[in-house]
Amino acid sequence: MGRCSLLLLLLLIAFLTPGAANPVSPSLRAPSSLPWSTSFRSRPTITLKYSIRYIQQKVDHFGFNIDRTFKQRYLIADNYWKEDGGSILFYTGNEGDIIWFCNNTGFMWDIAEEMKAMLVFAEHRYYGESLPFGADSFSDSRHLNFLTTEQALADFAKLIRYLKRTIPGARNQHVIALGGSYGGMLAAWFRMKYPHLVVGALASSAPIWQFNDLVPCDIFMKIVTTDFSQSGPNCSESIRRSWDAINRLAKKGTGLRWLSEALHLCTPLTKSQDVQRLKDWISETWVNVAMVDYPYESNFLQPLPAWPVKVVCQYFKYSNVPDTVMVQNIFQALNVYYNYSGQAKCLNVSETATSSLGVLGWSYQACTEMVMPTCSDGVDDMFEPHSWNMKEYSDDCFKQWGVRPRPSWIPTMYGGKNISSHTNIIFSNGELDPWSGGGVTKDITDTLLAIVIPNGAHHLDLRASNALDPVSVQLTRSLEVKYMKQWISDFYVRLRKMN
Amino acid sequence: MGRCSLLLLLLLIAFLTPGAANPVSPSLRAPSSLPWSTSFRSRPTITLKYSIRYIQQKVDHFGFNIDRTFKQRYLIADNYWKEDGGSILFYTGNEGDIIWFCNNTGFMWDIAEEMKAMLVFAEHRYYGESLPFGADSFSDSRHLNFLTTEQALADFAKLIRYLKRTIPGARNQHVIALGGSYGGMLAAWFRMKYPHLVVGALASSAPIWQFNDLVPCDIFMKIVTTDFSQSGPNCSESIRRSWDAINRLAKKGTGLRWLSEALHLCTPLTKSQDVQRLKDWISETWVNVAMVDYPYESNFLQPLPAWPVKVVCQYFKYSNVPDTVMVQNIFQALNVYYNYSGQAKCLNVSETATSSLGVLGWSYQACTEMVMPTCSDGVDDMFEPHSWNMKEYSDDCFKQWGVRPRPSWIPTMYGGKNISSHTNIIFSNGELDPWSGGGVTKDITDTLLAIVIPNGAHHLDLRASNALDPVSVQLTRSLEVKYMKQWISDFYVRLRKMN
Repeated sequence: MGRCSLLLLLLLIAFLTPGAANPVSPSLRAPSSLPWSTSFRSRPTITLKYSIRYIQQKVDHFGFNIDRTFKQRYLIADNYWKEDGGSILFYTGNEGDIIWFCNNTGFMWDIAEEMKAMLVFAEHRYYGESLPFGADSFSDSRHLNFLTTEQALADFAKLIRYLKRTIPGARNQHVIALGGSYGGMLAAWFRMKYPHLVVGALASSAPIWQFNDLVPCDIFMKIVTTDFSQSGPNCSESIRRSWDAINRLAKKGTGLRWLSEALHLCTPLTKSQDVQRLKDWISETWVNVAMVDYPYESNFLQPLPAWPVKVVCQYFKYSNVPDTVMVQNIFQALNVYYNYSGQAKCLNVSETATSSLGVLGWSYQACTEMVMPTCSDGVDDMFEPHSWNMKEYSDDCFKQWGVRPRPSWIPTMYGGKNISSHTNIIFSNGELDPWSGGGVTKDITDTLLAIVIPNGAHHLDLRASNALDPVSVQLTRSLEVKYMKQWISDFYVRLRKMN
Repeated sequence: MGRCSLLLLLLLIAFLTPGAANPVSPSLRAPSSLPWSTSFRSRPTITLKYSIRYIQQKVDHFGFNIDRTFKQRYLIADNYWKEDGGSILFYTGNEGDIIWFCNNTGFMWDIAEEMKAMLVFAEHRYYGESLPFGADSFSDSRHLNFLTTEQALADFAKLIRYLKRTIPGARNQHVIALGGSYGGMLAAWFRMKYPHLVVGALASSAPIWQFNDLVPCDIFMKIVTTDFSQSGPNCSESIRRSWDAINRLAKKGTGLRWLSEALHLCTPLTKSQDVQRLKDWISETWVNVAMVDYPYESNFLQPLPAWPVKVVCQYFKYSNVPDTVMVQNIFQALNVYYNYSGQAKCLNVSETATSSLGVLGWSYQACTEMVMPTCSDGVDDMFEPHSWNMKEYSDDCFKQWGVRPRPSWIPTMYGGKNISSHTNIIFSNGELDPWSGGGVTKDITDTLLAIVIPNGAHHLDLRASNALDPVSVQLTRSLEVKYMKQWISDFYVRLRKMN
């Protein structure tokens, strides 16, 4: 990972890879001034009753030379399911452990009764327990060769056919695909490629256009910056200035040591490259905070207070402060993200990139199909300038995985902006979510609909309803259910017409 | 090939694989009674002016471990192309040399001026000159691993994007996919999977439902039988009885020698298995004659007279004849197919299966994705009874190629009968064509249209117009042009609405 540029890192880390939620070691006392260090509590969890099951999948759906199979995990909950007119709500799992996604997709649980729904959460191959080659799955590009969106969608297709064949009463039932983030892309793409298997898809916070030159590469960082600008006076300006503060301090004689201590780093900085990694890691942190800027205390990437960007911004009220003060403020702000529980002993700059299968899998995907350009200029955004350099990106990928990305493949396969002939997809986007920049935010046709959620962060609509939810997300969820019911009724009308 | 059952053979051979047109050695004098032995002439060929070009394609679009490329051949003709409002008509090449398909798809040439069209004929990977591993392409299942419909469609997608990017004026032009037989399936599937690249597809004689249990397996042989029944008195009944005549003769002391001589076989029959192979080969011949039962002298699978089934049936007027007379009649009838030119020296029972790359490629495809069950019962059809035995079929495939077929994959991938959410596909079917049994012969929606052509054989509508064409096919072609123009106008209306 150390070979990757900031942008690659950002992409690898920030895109909701669960392992990317920088886990920190326990028991660093949070500064006593932090109000939440004692008051934090886990969100009351709904008791989710599901069965864990497995299906044998071909490792390679698109070739016959390798006939090996592997066990794909999926979760199934049918408490509210009715054979008569009920739905199958199918979560198209993304880059992580499916139980974690299941626990963070309360929306499906909340609407299960109303939709008389069976809930199915399908784990994405190469994540969680669904490893095609077990412990060897990430060993080299030969073993990773079957980690693609097309293979993942084919797994979903086979699973749906299997469920319909084997569950009494399910055979003729309609299925709806749902997913968030990368899983939202998969839900949308699944409806596009397998419309015979799902009547529609809810694609929440799915940046299907964050590819090639479909959107400007700087849009992502601009949205992060806007979030910070709007969350406190001088906030983004302070952060914009913070990079030079770090640079200046790092150049001083004992600068690295001072920085390491001021930031309570688990591993002290020892060389100049470490400073770049430090800044990359801090950048990623601000990106992550923007993504999960939920209106209530939550625990998605990390345990966090309500509106965490606002909380972070409390430490960036003043942009004209001495460099040392700036760094101390950064530390306080980082603690919002890394130490809301008050348990962290030190902050670990490198942990995000190495500790989880999720990171490995996503890193490979970002180096093959999922090339999502981002860049920053330090003027219209609060980050250090980084241009998007495809050549460098490709070389980094080749060094890391022995493969080269094919940046135009996803638009070739999934249509880029020319998707108007598809039907029955809702693209919902949180306005605060940096990924909304690559999302569909305007209706394309009367059945390819966009919803933008003011005050919404990354797939807020898929989360369980909460008393602190803004009205916007409550309305969004109602609309989503309304559209889903419309798809279902259209489906049965068409079915009756045909028979 | 000797290991394969009749049904496998039929599938491998009959499905318009060009190399399967049993080529015979020159100069066996046709029986002097045959009226066409002197009168045969090649159909006047339109002068087709095209350029032969090549594009570098990834061997594996769906994996990144193998980054190798190969040269895909395509033909391009732009004499009539107009940048302003013109079309790109894109032939989705099937299992053979693309020049041969180009020469047999006169319809595209006939409408080029009216459609102001650029014609593109894309060769299917692993056929003609488009061999991913050159001479090694068919050496084993490792090299054949990239011969799938998905890879072929991806080649087409990349080629269209490349043409639009590199041909001045082509960038914003609409493309229509056209294909016949397996190529017709590819055209339909291409529209289903890549609707962003083509505004519609003409799928001529495309048996997209000849899979799994979507249609009864006996439908194919029943249609062949009906063709023969309707083409002469006692014709199908005579053929039904012919198998036993052969069996009885074969059992006699010098029966094999007699049969070999009576049928002018290049290689005499020496053992009882040879008799089965002989009957398989004769069955295939009748199937092929039914497929190319065109209303005029033609040269598609073989040089043939007009309405060849009728001509064959002249030799089967009497079903109650001595076995020896029956075999002599079979010989005369075989000569219609194998020796219309009057040049064949002997008839070669085994040649069909080994002489061409097309046969190898199709044999592999039939053993992997393209599993199209057929069966016969000898009662409702004129063939010997053969049930469809998936286990035996799979074992044969494993012996031959080291792979096992996945018979439910094509319906999983392409929707089986649940394709109503797609749009803008014409399914045309010749009523005489045995493949129409697996085709779409009724409208599915108002943009998924079926046309059945009375008196039409296998993709007659794609052939050049001919003075002897029945009115039905003339009307069909007019309708096809009308629908294509409708797609184009809808496309521009939608485009204007979006911008």
